[in-house]
Amino acid sequence: MRYLLLSVIVLLLLSCTKKQTPAIVLQTDFGVKDGAVAEVKGVIFETSPAIPVFDLTHEIPSYNIGEAAYRLQQTAPYWPRGTIFVSVVDPGVGTARKPVVLKTLTGHYFVSPDNGSLTWVAQKMGVVQVRQIDEILNRRPGSADSYTFHGRDIFAYTAAKLAAGKISFEEVGPKLPAGVVMLPYQQPVYENRAIKGNIPVLDPQYGNVWTDIDTSVFKKLQVRYNDTLEVKITHNDLLVYAGNLPYMRAFGEAGENDALIYMNSLMNIALAINMGNFSEKYKIGSGATWNITLKKY
Amino acid sequence: MRYLLLSVIVLLLLSCTKKQTPAIVLQTDFGVKDGAVAEVKGVIFETSPAIPVFDLTHEIPSYNIGEAAYRLQQTAPYWPRGTIFVSVVDPGVGTARKPVVLKTLTGHYFVSPDNGSLTWVAQKMGVVQVRQIDEILNRRPGSADSYTFHGRDIFAYTAAKLAAGKISFEEVGPKLPAGVVMLPYQQPVYENRAIKGNIPVLDPQYGNVWTDIDTSVFKKLQVRYNDTLEVKITHNDLLVYAGNLPYMRAFGEAGENDALIYMNSLMNIALAINMGNFSEKYKIGSGATWNITLKKY
Amino acid sequence: MRYLLLSVIVLLLLSCTKKQTPAIVLQTDFGVKDGAVAEVKGVIFETSPAIPVFDLTHEIPSYNIGEAAYRLQQTAPYWPRGTIFVSVVDPGVGTARKPVVLKTLTGHYFVSPDNGSLTWVAQKMGVVQVRQIDEILNRRPGSADSYTFHGRDIFAYTAAKLAAGKISFEEVGPKLPAGVVMLPYQQPVYENRAIKGNIPVLDPQYGNVWTDIDTSVFKKLQVRYNDTLEVKITHNDLLVYAGNLPYMRAFGEAGENDALIYMNSLMNIALAINMGNFSEKYKIGSGATWNITLKKY
Repeated sequence: MRYLLLSVIVLLLLSCTKKQTPAIVLQTDFGVKDGAVAEVKGVIFETSPAIPVFDLTHEIPSYNIGEAAYRLQQTAPYWPRGTIFVSVVDPGVGTARKPVVLKTLTGHYFVSPDNGSLTWVAQKMGVVQVRQIDEILNRRPGSADSYTFHGRDIFAYTAAKLAAGKISFEEVGPKLPAGVVMLPYQQPVYENRAIKGNIPVLDPQYGNVWTDIDTSVFKKLQVRYNDTLEVKITHNDLLVYAGNLPYMRAFGEAGENDALIYMNSLMNIALAINMGNFSEKYKIGSGATWNITLKKY
Repeated sequence: MRYLLLSVIVLLLLSCTKKQTPAIVLQTDFGVKDGAVAEVKGVIFETSPAIPVFDLTHEIPSYNIGEAAYRLQQTAPYWPRGTIFVSVVDPGVGTARKPVVLKTLTGHYFVSPDNGSLTWVAQKMGVVQVRQIDEILNRRPGSADSYTFHGRDIFAYTAAKLAAGKISFEEVGPKLPAGVVMLPYQQPVYENRAIKGNIPVLDPQYGNVWTDIDTSVFKKLQVRYNDTLEVKITHNDLLVYAGNLPYMRAFGEAGENDALIYMNSLMNIALAINMGNFSEKYKIGSGATWNITLKKY
Repeated sequence: MRYLLLSVIVLLLLSCTKKQTPAIVLQTDFGVKDGAVAEVKGVIFETSPAIPVFDLTHEIPSYNIGEAAYRLQQTAPYWPRGTIFVSVVDPGVGTARKPVVLKTLTGHYFVSPDNGSLTWVAQKMGVVQVRQIDEILNRRPGSADSYTFHGRDIFAYTAAKLAAGKISFEEVGPKLPAGVVMLPYQQPVYENRAIKGNIPVLDPQYGNVWTDIDTSVFKKLQVRYNDTLEVKITHNDLLVYAGNLPYMRAFGEAGENDALIYMNSLMNIALAINMGNFSEKYKIGSGATWNITLKKY
């Protein structure tokens, strides 16, 4: 009887200490003016109310796959292993692009149409395996006649089953040995005391300009705080901005309304105006056609 | 002693396997720029931290009861039985309109001012019973002198007590035998190889135009994929748009910037421009005064 | 053996009835278009998935410390004791302003840069103690080279450790005996049958104008419902609006598009247009330079 009791107690303890369900983090270009995001969350909640659900953003500019790719790699490192990201910027919904789940070396999962959205997390976090979602098995029951909302019917549904442990990663569908579709990109280049890089996104709330020039390239310029650099920004190779700006630790070290160069929170070089809006003032945009050069005399 | 122990163990098991608290899903026209939504959530959290709280949207256009009604019926079917929706688009706050809770045949609850916001869920999900909230019993203590924020003081407070099991549906208040206030509406009509319907809302993020023409009416036109239909859109009976558009499965089947007809994710007919914005390009709005005709030759 | 079993059962019960983790409520000027808020939430979730996380708003106008201060005092009273507010409107990030945690007499915690953001909660909720965050101990590991995102690396990280019980309030850092930085403000003044007050914020969604004239001052005018008051609004002492408006309980008591005075949901005097937008129509703003006078004849 003593052993029986002990077994029961162990079982009880196990039932009490439930394993933490991994979080699902959602990124879309749906906006939040209508019911689309709430339909997605309803599908997840119905699968299991134990899944913690968070929003990355639903304000990716419509159809902008490049920005979707950037925001995923910006955010994912701050979430624990096992977190499942669902990214739905999907202009090709209902056509031949594949729905996939990518598992990275860092232990994160990314559920997305395979349209380039996973470029940066594949490149920076490393690919363990990519699986194509089986659209027969892993599709919300009753949704087969709907061709325009795979975010709800396939991506969120598959992520929820994965988070709840109702399917394993292997049960998502067959392996895709070729990996994910990669957007073209060029690493920043150092040459002759100058670095040429790209402006992948803006920091839209403050109008800061974010580059892809990271510390490993930037240190080649051997810049110290308060040094001044020559900055040129081009759009399709036409000059949009030229100026000499100081490199500073933080916005408040510059005078109010003065521009500066700083290392942003992702450890990439960025431009700002203290208490102002750089991108608005100088009409700077972002994407593959926007480049920047930093030169040290 | 053995029986005593067994009873204790059963009690323990019961205390460990807590029943899932139903979710509250919030819809308002409050926006998210100030503290209003967070006041509402604080009232719910204070009632019980176990209640899962989600947002449908807080961007219903100010005072737009028709759109509130539409977004509820759009979203509710994707949430499990027992889910409690709180909808606060309430231009008549503080006047005679009644605060109510509607229980539908599908097992969902809707907490709202009775001003037409519940038209579509009553019509599509079926009415089990409507109860008028007792504003003495089911009002946040200390809020009797506030006449302008029933969303916080009555609707969210009542929903939270219902979700937490602190009151039953019967304890909400007295039955309203007459049911809820219904907005006037007209079902889409088929006649002479044409369907005339309404444009209740837009899909604002992408500029798609959503109609109330569902599959049961649309099939009367006997349209196959890639057939072309004549489309006319009127506002107060004045022609705003006329064109011949193909019926397609998904956006990507049309050329970039080409318009198409498709079946949207709620299984209603809709119009879009692939990678573009139909409602912006052709200045299409929504509501009772916007109609659409589809004709097959 | 009986006592052993009873002890085990008591331990089991304790392990089953977990103490509720306090909520963290976030307020920032980050917007929700990029990954910043989700980075913050990832840091909290990684510290402990048991922490309930809510948004107050992320749409405080950039760098607007006065509005940040107002929204905190607007919202906090609706949350239970123990709730931890994180407010990050931080134009001085990376400079000498101090990161602090304020504990109020009401039992709430406020984690923020000490730049005036805590003015109103300190004044209205009472100060128990202010502690300066120790930026060595209470900083996200590996973030020492980032000078521009203390919201993520210091404020959210410290709040999460506090919520999860990994540090006590005392372990936040040393006491700041001087209290928090206070924005200058003037209480509303009653004189000669008139009250002069300030317009600290708008109710941006509906365009209502919110004053700091509360019931204790307003009652000196001895106004009854439907009395008319003379209203003057000035900006930097220049007259922007003058009119005679009735004092009413709720918007719907005025005719459509008619203006009224009412007691808002925080029990302060406010102006509105029924079904309209007062601040847009009359170009009213908010902040220290906007004043209002109410006069009774």
